[in-house]
Amino acid sequence: MTPGPTQVPEAARLVLARQVRHHRTADARATLAEALDGLRYVFRTANDVVLLSCSGTGAMEAAVVNSVPRGGKAIVLDAGVFAHRWSDICQAFEIEVVRHAVEWGSAIEADDVAALVCRHSDASAVFGTLMESSTGVAHDIEAIGAAIRSSAAGRDRVPLWIVDGISGAAVIPCETDAWGVDVLVVGSQKALMLPPGLGVIAASEAAWQQMERITPQAFYFNLLAHRRKLRGAQGEGPDTPYTPAHTLIAALAENLKLIRETGIENVWKRSDVLSAATRAGVEAMELKIFAKRPAAGLTAVEFPPGLDGSALLQRLEQRFGLKLAGGQGRLKGKIFRIAHLGMLDELDILGTLAALELVLHEMHFPVTLGSGVAAASQYLASHSMPASPLIA
Amino acid sequence: MTPGPTQVPEAARLVLARQVRHHRTADARATLAEALDGLRYVFRTANDVVLLSCSGTGAMEAAVVNSVPRGGKAIVLDAGVFAHRWSDICQAFEIEVVRHAVEWGSAIEADDVAALVCRHSDASAVFGTLMESSTGVAHDIEAIGAAIRSSAAGRDRVPLWIVDGISGAAVIPCETDAWGVDVLVVGSQKALMLPPGLGVIAASEAAWQQMERITPQAFYFNLLAHRRKLRGAQGEGPDTPYTPAHTLIAALAENLKLIRETGIENVWKRSDVLSAATRAGVEAMELKIFAKRPAAGLTAVEFPPGLDGSALLQRLEQRFGLKLAGGQGRLKGKIFRIAHLGMLDELDILGTLAALELVLHEMHFPVTLGSGVAAASQYLASHSMPASPLIA
Repeated sequence: MTPGPTQVPEAARLVLARQVRHHRTADARATLAEALDGLRYVFRTANDVVLLSCSGTGAMEAAVVNSVPRGGKAIVLDAGVFAHRWSDICQAFEIEVVRHAVEWGSAIEADDVAALVCRHSDASAVFGTLMESSTGVAHDIEAIGAAIRSSAAGRDRVPLWIVDGISGAAVIPCETDAWGVDVLVVGSQKALMLPPGLGVIAASEAAWQQMERITPQAFYFNLLAHRRKLRGAQGEGPDTPYTPAHTLIAALAENLKLIRETGIENVWKRSDVLSAATRAGVEAMELKIFAKRPAAGLTAVEFPPGLDGSALLQRLEQRFGLKLAGGQGRLKGKIFRIAHLGMLDELDILGTLAALELVLHEMHFPVTLGSGVAAASQYLASHSMPASPLIA
Repeated sequence: MTPGPTQVPEAARLVLARQVRHHRTADARATLAEALDGLRYVFRTANDVVLLSCSGTGAMEAAVVNSVPRGGKAIVLDAGVFAHRWSDICQAFEIEVVRHAVEWGSAIEADDVAALVCRHSDASAVFGTLMESSTGVAHDIEAIGAAIRSSAAGRDRVPLWIVDGISGAAVIPCETDAWGVDVLVVGSQKALMLPPGLGVIAASEAAWQQMERITPQAFYFNLLAHRRKLRGAQGEGPDTPYTPAHTLIAALAENLKLIRETGIENVWKRSDVLSAATRAGVEAMELKIFAKRPAAGLTAVEFPPGLDGSALLQRLEQRFGLKLAGGQGRLKGKIFRIAHLGMLDELDILGTLAALELVLHEMHFPVTLGSGVAAASQYLASHSMPASPLIA
């Protein structure tokens, strides 16, 4: 029940066990084309999508070094550990960072972003996070995107709106094209339900144009080189500049079929129902939700005062084989996190709440056994969840 | 029979099919430790080895950006397509390249390298290739390393000797420590017999010291950040700065067991016997070996004049399901390549030669059926090949 790596569906795991085929073949190109097409469906974009052989952080680096030149300026919306990584990457590549930080647990406000974009007319991009998985906060990507565009209206160039969707995309709604997201970054081991090792970049036409204008501090992550190979020769299908992690790409194509069968709106709806049920259960146990704007993909819960948080997590794992994530950075020992990503269903949530109740009870924390489960069940009784072949 | 991706042993494929486990666990750290230990054995080094989640080109980039500062100078020994990539990477990161190119098919001479190192006392590194898989040439890594050190003797700093061993390491001998290789770069889909997606860097103490002195143009590929996590906290075992492709790492640990059982000297010896038998067979068919210093990992053969090379390769694939690699870049249509990497045995070589004879015969090229197979068998009859559990 951690926010990634998520469980991998059986069909994809069987693909991973197949003998390796050569990647410079019509077969491999067809599989890549199928995967890219599925990614466009899932991320709601008609633009070019690039698959990189790296983890999510590598894809974040690709977004940075292709969008902002050395010595350029970037606005970073910092609401937690993962947003902070945008700043670290920028600084490694000598990009000036205007850092707008909010208290952890809070969300970035669109109005504040508008003011920043007004003040820093020379910024090449604004970097944010769809779901900040260190705090469980979801951002209003649409409103922030609109604020960036209206603040920069009349200028030659609008800063690109670049969103880390590594843990949030395909979990909570992200209308990449409709909301004006210029670059969306995703990793393979979250909602895409694969082992780690693939990064995804979806980029708008404005983003591609900006990439053409700058000299990227990149070779392996040079996105234009990837796009050239993707577009390939007439009728040959997409290709990659360097050897791709193509067993993962074949497994990805398999998972994308399952997501398509479910329907992406239904995938979002499932997380929505599961997270609302979880919050109802957690609150009935008189525990406190940490995020002020909770994401449907992840529920961050404060440890009650006086309780040894790491002992709680350890007991859950030892007694039930149930792994919940603790807090990261300054939230270590302060919160724990229940994820609603991938192949989860109602019983996973109810079981988690029941286990939590039992272990809290054992640790002499005042909890009414069954109270959390009852509240969550109450919610589930009145809110139907779309079916999914993922839970077959 | 292409120079990668190689076939993946069954044990590793079954590991790839397992459900994903979390990577921040004692279990995952133990597997990483086992893999790193096996890599040190295979690459004959006692130094720190880093695993990166990327393809070989990503690991090459890591070697460049951590060893040579922006504006610094590098000597590139260019004997083919893959050596040329060193120059391209350097140029993307504003590193001045002194390019020493030889005719394709020839090897770089140590004396020429000595002269270059004398002339360019400000070069931070010399980049070369163990086995240039575009031409089938093996380099004398030991002699070139010695030439670099003797030319720079008495200087404050000796340029680092950085070797692309992506297709050659664990195929032909590479005594990383004993031969003074400062950075060895390897990919997962060649002799390590995995799907693509992992890069390996083995670095000497001198290399790590040089990395400490420069500001790398790197974040995802910052090797010092990786090394810090590898060394980890006391007693905790190695870790990684970003989510690693840990299903591949678990499969790697599995393959390394097989390589250890075989014995690395025996792995080298197997390639040596297979390549010598192949060359004997090819020459008996009156075809010409392209490389002047042929590598035991790969035999590059010139298409006979007047023969349609791509038709030959296509027929081999259609009739026998046998994929040989053609030439790359300016060698396209001029050569084909038979690899001796990974899980191959005598019958693979004899079958390849037999298929080649049959198809040449069908294409009306004057060949005595059985001549190539006979010569190769003659060689195999008098040269024993060490056994390997890889061929079980």
